[in-house]
Amino acid sequence: MKKKFSFKKITSFKNARVGKIFTSKGIIDTPAFMPVGTIANVKAMFPENIKQTNSQIILCNTYHLMLRPGENIIKKFGGIHKFMNSKLPILTDSGGYQVWSLAKLIKIEEKGVRFRSHIDGKLFFLTPEKCIKFQQKIGSDIIMVLDECPNYNITKAKAEKSLELTLRWAKRCKKVFNKKDSALFGIVQGAKYEDLRIKCALKLQEINFDGYAIGGLSVGEGQNEMLRILDKTVPYLPDDKPKYLMGVGTPNDIIKSVARGIDMFDCVLPTRMGRTGIAYTTSGIINIRNSKFKKDQNVLDKNLNCPASNNYSKAYIHHLFKCNEILGLMILTWHNIFYYQNFMLRIRKAIKKKEFDKFYNKYLKYEAIRK
Amino acid sequence: MKKKFSFKKITSFKNARVGKIFTSKGIIDTPAFMPVGTIANVKAMFPENIKQTNSQIILCNTYHLMLRPGENIIKKFGGIHKFMNSKLPILTDSGGYQVWSLAKLIKIEEKGVRFRSHIDGKLFFLTPEKCIKFQQKIGSDIIMVLDECPNYNITKAKAEKSLELTLRWAKRCKKVFNKKDSALFGIVQGAKYEDLRIKCALKLQEINFDGYAIGGLSVGEGQNEMLRILDKTVPYLPDDKPKYLMGVGTPNDIIKSVARGIDMFDCVLPTRMGRTGIAYTTSGIINIRNSKFKKDQNVLDKNLNCPASNNYSKAYIHHLFKCNEILGLMILTWHNIFYYQNFMLRIRKAIKKKEFDKFYNKYLKYEAIRK
Repeated sequence: MKKKFSFKKITSFKNARVGKIFTSKGIIDTPAFMPVGTIANVKAMFPENIKQTNSQIILCNTYHLMLRPGENIIKKFGGIHKFMNSKLPILTDSGGYQVWSLAKLIKIEEKGVRFRSHIDGKLFFLTPEKCIKFQQKIGSDIIMVLDECPNYNITKAKAEKSLELTLRWAKRCKKVFNKKDSALFGIVQGAKYEDLRIKCALKLQEINFDGYAIGGLSVGEGQNEMLRILDKTVPYLPDDKPKYLMGVGTPNDIIKSVARGIDMFDCVLPTRMGRTGIAYTTSGIINIRNSKFKKDQNVLDKNLNCPASNNYSKAYIHHLFKCNEILGLMILTWHNIFYYQNFMLRIRKAIKKKEFDKFYNKYLKYEAIRK
Repeated sequence: MKKKFSFKKITSFKNARVGKIFTSKGIIDTPAFMPVGTIANVKAMFPENIKQTNSQIILCNTYHLMLRPGENIIKKFGGIHKFMNSKLPILTDSGGYQVWSLAKLIKIEEKGVRFRSHIDGKLFFLTPEKCIKFQQKIGSDIIMVLDECPNYNITKAKAEKSLELTLRWAKRCKKVFNKKDSALFGIVQGAKYEDLRIKCALKLQEINFDGYAIGGLSVGEGQNEMLRILDKTVPYLPDDKPKYLMGVGTPNDIIKSVARGIDMFDCVLPTRMGRTGIAYTTSGIINIRNSKFKKDQNVLDKNLNCPASNNYSKAYIHHLFKCNEILGLMILTWHNIFYYQNFMLRIRKAIKKKEFDKFYNKYLKYEAIRK
């Protein structure tokens, strides 16, 4: 029998926690960072190399996969893991956010959402039921409910109405969910309204999910706003389930969210930045295109043992970016994910050693100096 | 003491030969195919993975490296191998061809060639002496002389004049060459004129090079023309030195040139084609973007044991190209070089077994059917 999904809190320091998520595909140490593999591929990386970034789970996106290659093709291959040749667990976002941000939205109805593909205009009708069935069919290990992701600053009346729909949809998702070796996560919405966020957190627990995500943040509201919502919401989420902050963020966002009890993160930042020449290093963020690196014989980060970047000098990577060589972004993509995973490792170590406050202050001070 | 460059013919079948080139960086089995790493990088591949394509030597380009990153930077790093982290031997083309094809050519003088960079218009003056010194400084294992690469169809008078200059430059290259653990190759020019080609082959031998290249072919003259020149020229090149046909070519070009005694090849075809979605397979050339591969669960080529492509279905690679994912071209680049190296291996085996004629006919017949 396949191992069932479970979460175990191992230790904590104030609100920050270290835990383990058990899935049939492997264990995920939390707080965890999930690199983004939107269309069944972490951009510019061989799936086999993801493990060497110390990532333990990949995020893919239902909206994108539904459009291309489509559910039947992935199912034909025995699921997304086999399709992309990845042995790591996979979390699939429900696509709620992408429907609102990318697609040409036609109409939100009680039954579901009608939209046109941003690629070819093809009409889709996504319901909570279809969304869960899709994620189950492709073999996702952590499945997200379909939610409505409203603008952060909508009126309270609209936010309430949207939240009610999100909750009704969450119930329908739970009802149809039946893949016993995977997990179903609820998503807390409620825009900028603390009471709505709390209400949503509590109502979702009545439905009872395997984990709880906080959505609709990191959408331009600014870090202070995001932290305000976290401060009010996280205390209302259960201690024995993983808490996932969707689409976040910078290392600074992550450390501050960990301090508030968040266990899981995903973000395109390390990979997207890597493709433009931005590298995360333990001595600060650098733009490798900068001419000061033209003759720099040092590796990108001697404090990291990154298998991708440690073979080259900064001068070589600078040269590759100056010449628009694909290898440049291949190196920085891998390096940046490696940096993020190392950062998560240091966070987990600090919590375990009951030194998270020291690590936290040291990190923020260090970041301030580097600016 | 570093091992000196040498060539050993091992066996032959009619004009086709199998041999070994010994360099201080390793042995190269001939007939050999050299993947093109123009600007100190085989596009879309980690230098560490080149060995896994079964390549034994990489080609880089003096013209491109002179422009970017420039000789001083590479020298500062202790040579091009260290700069790009490659342990394989490296052959550097002299840049003669690129000066004529890419650069804004200012003037060819007795002393050298004056040109502007195709990137930023910067003025360069390249002499035979500078060209050799550059290649020596960056630590090239096989150094090419600076030649003039005239149009294939120029008048005989012009071809003769150009050839005389190429020969005088070849002498000057030889005079300045003093890197004892590397090799210096002469380049046979002479446009479309058989007698000039033969004259050049003989005159270069008077200067005495470690190997002989045939240049100015595969420039649009067509295969028949190219083979006509090879038929007339190769017999005048010495049996105990490697013979290198520059910039060639398709597998068809290669097998026909091997039959005429060629030992070394380089071409951008497998890498450039790979980036556009074209894959070389033992069942023919395919365009992976073709919709017939949308649901194809087979690997790209089950007869090859390519470490890059054998992990994925054609449907997955098709999906990657359809989504413009960089991974698609990473896979096809590696795969196509692997295909080429496997083709060279099969050629060497066939020659060793004295079955090259059978292999040759079978291959050409097979290719004809596939068309």
